[in-house]
Order: sequence, then C-alpha cells, then structure tokens
Amino acid sequence: MPVHPGGQVVMGHGGGGLLSAELVEQLFLPAFGNAAATATPTDSAVMALPGGTRLAFTTDSYVVQPLFFPGGDIGELAVFGTVNDLAMSGATPLALSSAFVLEEGLELDVLGAVAASMGRAALRAGVGLVTGDTKVVEHGHGDGLYVTTAGVGIVPAGVDIRPDRAVPGDVVIVSGPIGMHGIAVLSVREGLEFGTEILSDTAPLAGLVAAMLGVDRDLHVLRDLTRGGLATSLCELAATAGVGIVFEEQRVPVPEAVRAGCGFLGLDPLHVANEGKLVAFVSADRAEQVLDVMRATPEGRDSVVIGHVVDDHPGVVVARTALGATRVVDRPLGEQLPRIC
Amino acid sequence: MPVHPGGQVVMGHGGGGLLSAELVEQLFLPAFGNAAATATPTDSAVMALPGGTRLAFTTDSYVVQPLFFPGGDIGELAVFGTVNDLAMSGATPLALSSAFVLEEGLELDVLGAVAASMGRAALRAGVGLVTGDTKVVEHGHGDGLYVTTAGVGIVPAGVDIRPDRAVPGDVVIVSGPIGMHGIAVLSVREGLEFGTEILSDTAPLAGLVAAMLGVDRDLHVLRDLTRGGLATSLCELAATAGVGIVFEEQRVPVPEAVRAGCGFLGLDPLHVANEGKLVAFVSADRAEQVLDVMRATPEGRDSVVIGHVVDDHPGVVVARTALGATRVVDRPLGEQLPRIC
Repeated sequence: MPVHPGGQVVMGHGGGGLLSAELVEQLFLPAFGNAAATATPTDSAVMALPGGTRLAFTTDSYVVQPLFFPGGDIGELAVFGTVNDLAMSGATPLALSSAFVLEEGLELDVLGAVAASMGRAALRAGVGLVTGDTKVVEHGHGDGLYVTTAGVGIVPAGVDIRPDRAVPGDVVIVSGPIGMHGIAVLSVREGLEFGTEILSDTAPLAGLVAAMLGVDRDLHVLRDLTRGGLATSLCELAATAGVGIVFEEQRVPVPEAVRAGCGFLGLDPLHVANEGKLVAFVSADRAEQVLDVMRATPEGRDSVVIGHVVDDHPGVVVARTALGATRVVDRPLGEQLPRIC
Repeated sequence: MPVHPGGQVVMGHGGGGLLSAELVEQLFLPAFGNAAATATPTDSAVMALPGGTRLAFTTDSYVVQPLFFPGGDIGELAVFGTVNDLAMSGATPLALSSAFVLEEGLELDVLGAVAASMGRAALRAGVGLVTGDTKVVEHGHGDGLYVTTAGVGIVPAGVDIRPDRAVPGDVVIVSGPIGMHGIAVLSVREGLEFGTEILSDTAPLAGLVAAMLGVDRDLHVLRDLTRGGLATSLCELAATAGVGIVFEEQRVPVPEAVRAGCGFLGLDPLHVANEGKLVAFVSADRAEQVLDVMRATPEGRDSVVIGHVVDDHPGVVVARTALGATRVVDRPLGEQLPRIC
C-alpha cells in the first residue's frame, strides 16, 4: 500500500496506525538514508556513551485539541508522554526539553497555565525542564500552541527491554483500564455526554517501571498504549518480534463510560488512545511477582494478565471472545480520533 | 516592561530579541518553577551523568517560510541549527531527534525532499537521526510543516564554555560575514532583488569548534549568531557575564549584498539572522592561534577579531564607528524578520 494514493498528507498519517507506520517506513527512513537509526522501532532510542552509560533519547510533538480536557492538558501530556517513552526502555528519566510553536494572538494566560502544568508534571515525574525554544507563527497558521518535548534518561545496567525480546510463553500484562484518554478528549471536543464523566488517564509510568524492574531485571518488552490503542501496540510488537499473541477479550479492563462512548461513536475500545497505561511481556515464572508489585503502585493498581505470546501465527494478534470464538485483531488504518495527543 | 501589554502572544515573542527573553524570564521560568533549570542561559544544557560523562542537550523548533530558500531549506536548518547549539557548549554532537507537525494536504514530495535534506545534513554533521514523531493538523492550522529537532552530545573533559566565563581582556572573534541567512530568506519571501543573489550561510559548526578546542581547551565563550543577529548575541553575553564589550564596526564583515538588502529594507545588519556563524571570546594570549585554526576550516575561513571584553560599562556593548565615534548597541525588541528559522 502506498503512503497515500493522492500524494498528500492526510490526517491519518498522524493517527499512529498503519498510515503512520508506512510514512516512517516508506518516506522518512529512505529519505534519512544512512543517517537513520536502523534499530527496531521502539519508544526511545538507546545509545551507549563513552564509559558504558546507556542513554535513552526520545521526542514527541503534542497537538491535542482542546488544550485542556477532563483530567489533563497539553502541558501535562507533553511531560508524561515523553517520560513514558523513556520509561518503556527501562530508563530513569533525567531531563526534558520543551519547544513551543505559538500562534499569534494566543492569550498569555493560557500559555502560562500550560507552562505551569508542565512544571508540576515535571516535578511529579522527577525530571528537570532544562532547555527550550519558542517560535511564533501568524494567526491562522497554528492552533493556539503546539509543544514538542524531547527527553533523556539513563538505562540501568543489565536492563534490556526491546520488542524483539518477546518469546513464546511470555505473559502479557496490561497496567489498567483502557480507552480513557481518547474518550475524555473526544467527550469535550464533540460536546458529547456519555452519562458518567470520564477523565484522561495521563500519568507518568517511570515509577511503575522501576518497581517492575525491582523484581524482574530481565523484563522483556514494554510499550505504552498511546495513539492506536492496545490493538496497535500488540500488532506492532507481534510484527516486530515475529511472534503471535493471544488474549482474552473479557479480561481487558474497559470502564463502563468508555464502553458507552465507544458504542455511541462506533469505536473499538482496543483502538482508543491511553496516556497512562502500558503493556508488558514478562517471563511466565516472574509474572506473578511482577503483577504483585504493579498492583502495589498507584499507576498499576488495576493491572491484569490478558494473554500470552505464542509460537503459532507469527505477527498476528488473536482475541478470544467471551463466547469462546477467536478473531484476528487489526490496527486501525489511520485516525479514528484526530489530534488526540 | 511587561511580556506584552495586550496579554497576547505577538510575532515578536518569537523574534529572539527582548520580547523573547522576557517571555522566558517572566512567563516560562516562573511557571516551570522548581522544575526549571536555574543555570545561566546557554545554547544547550550541560548535565553530568553517572560516571562523569557530561551530556549536552538542546532543542529548537523550525517554522521558516519559505521551506526552501537560496542556499538551504528547513530540513538542513533543523539539523545544523541543533548541531550548532550543541557545539556552542563544546560538545561533540551525537544524535538528533526529529518531530514533525504536518499540515493536512502537504505534498508528500515536499516532505520527502525536506527529509532527504535532513538525512544529507545529518551525515555531513556526523550525527544520527535516531528517534522521531509525526503529528498531522487540519488544513489551515499549520503551514506545510514545522519540525522540531533535539540533540544530544558529549562535552569533552576539561572543556567549560559558558557565557559567564567572559573576562575583561578576552578577544572577540566572529567566524565570518554576517546577515546572509536573514537576507537570503527575505529576498525570496518578499520577492525582492538586491542585485547579487545572496545564499544562506547555513552550516554545521561542530568541526570548527573542535579545531578551536584543539589549540585552546580553555575557550571561554561561544555563541552562534541566529535570530537577533550579532548584536543580540553580544548584548546577551555582556548582560549574562556582567562585562562590557567594545568592537570596531568596520571590522565586522558585511557582504555587499547584505548591506544593499539592509539598506533597502531599513534593517541593521547587526540584527539580521545567521545560521553558520559564531562569536568566540578567547584569552588574548591564545587569540592568534585560535584565529589561525579557524581560518584553516571551511566554516571559519573568514574569521576576524572585531573587539574585546572590557571592565567598563558592564552589561553594555559599544561599537566604535568608522569615524571614531562610539554608539551603544541594542538588541531588537521583537521580530525584524518573522519566521526566519
């Protein structure tokens, strides 16, 4: 499939699904050429520095609309999202940069509120905001503000968390209920009401990961469930590692309000974005212990085992339904929920 | 002076002059609170890692219009600009991240050309493009593409380049002719012709800095001359270090086409942006040697001594005119040339 038949950027290229992946594989990597990293796709790049220290390095731009939504805002998201990408390599987050593209006419009070939220989030996550930049574009060439954070962290000795370390037999754990961020943002954007108010799950996951590494230094795979949801993460991991994944649909925690919102909008909760949840692949003999420490943290208290890694159907994710049937789980093509993060 | 009396973001907040500095000091730093870096303002943050390695870390967003201009494009700028911010700490650049905010409808061929330019620039600068992100915003909420790069590098042992290391007696060196980037971009944007075509000076400066450190490990101050031009850099350095700076106006190399363009537009060449020039403050006893190695590099072949650091008038920059008079040099308030980088 071509990046896009019309030869133009479409909203789906930013959706985190198949179109996003194709843009990276078919446009960015060939264009970057020998300057591109050749490693398997991960949430953050890990580099060995002189002296043996391993540095994790990552970046994300944030374009969420609205800037403030139930349970969070763009500033908090920009801090926690980048902290979480570092944590998915097992890294201890150290410092963030922040670069703003402001639209002429933005209220300084709004910018101040976003920046204050970033400051609070950074303190909570234990990182400094050490360097930054600000650009301004004319009214009508932005949308209030976009912010890009990059982050650096240190990967502890002995830790080696990578998608391709998934092996058959690994237990698949999800750290809590899914779909909350996507439905929270959509509920205010579309002026929808789903009965119960739902809050974004935005949270820093480095503490949760540190607790997990405390009982299992050999953790195989971590991924945070952002754009594209649980389904996209599992499909990407299965494809990268060349393994199959089987999970029980009814074990995946879906809050009632997310279920209602998804039903109303015709969305699959497995495709909806999260901002404070991860999936972990853990050796079967460590799974119990890892689950215990996850449940002892605020960010992981609702962690559950949903399935496991299999030899069969490499690259394919299969869900067992409540009725005992099985179905193949796919990634969404492009955007279900544009500008969700 | 308040950040802006109207309480809104204006173009000048992105101009790199006084309004930009006030936005940082009066809005970002107070809002970030304890999470903010408290160090003196520098082009990149330097952090000590476990084991003693010192990491330089920096970021910049790029919003230049047009995306392609005489002598360069936004992709090359985004690589060299961030490499140069690392080099201004004396760091050897290691790796960059790239995060795109694309506008729906952008031609994929344009994106491909920008990405290919980034790949070539990264190879030339000796850095990898190791991690990235892509977001898409609706048509009318962007301007083709914005790109944010962040960079990491290693500061060699014994190197300590900081604005506040400027001391009276230091010799002030500029690495070549000024104003080329700003006038090159403006010439195509405004459809102006100034006789001679002028090309952007965009170039990676890490090689030049490495050569300088080879003969003077104790280099005091470096700054690349971007938004706000030579005047802004000198004023900021004088203020940060609490020293005075005196330079001879006629020693500052200004290409004839830059002079003509500035005359036509009513601009001061000292305020016009550069993307491949630096200013260095060097001990008087090393200045000759440093100048020699600078002139032996392609990026520094037109380096000249323009003045020196003085005890008098701390925080103030003074230019001696060709007629023997003196004048105080100021930073521009806001944007002279919006969206220049």
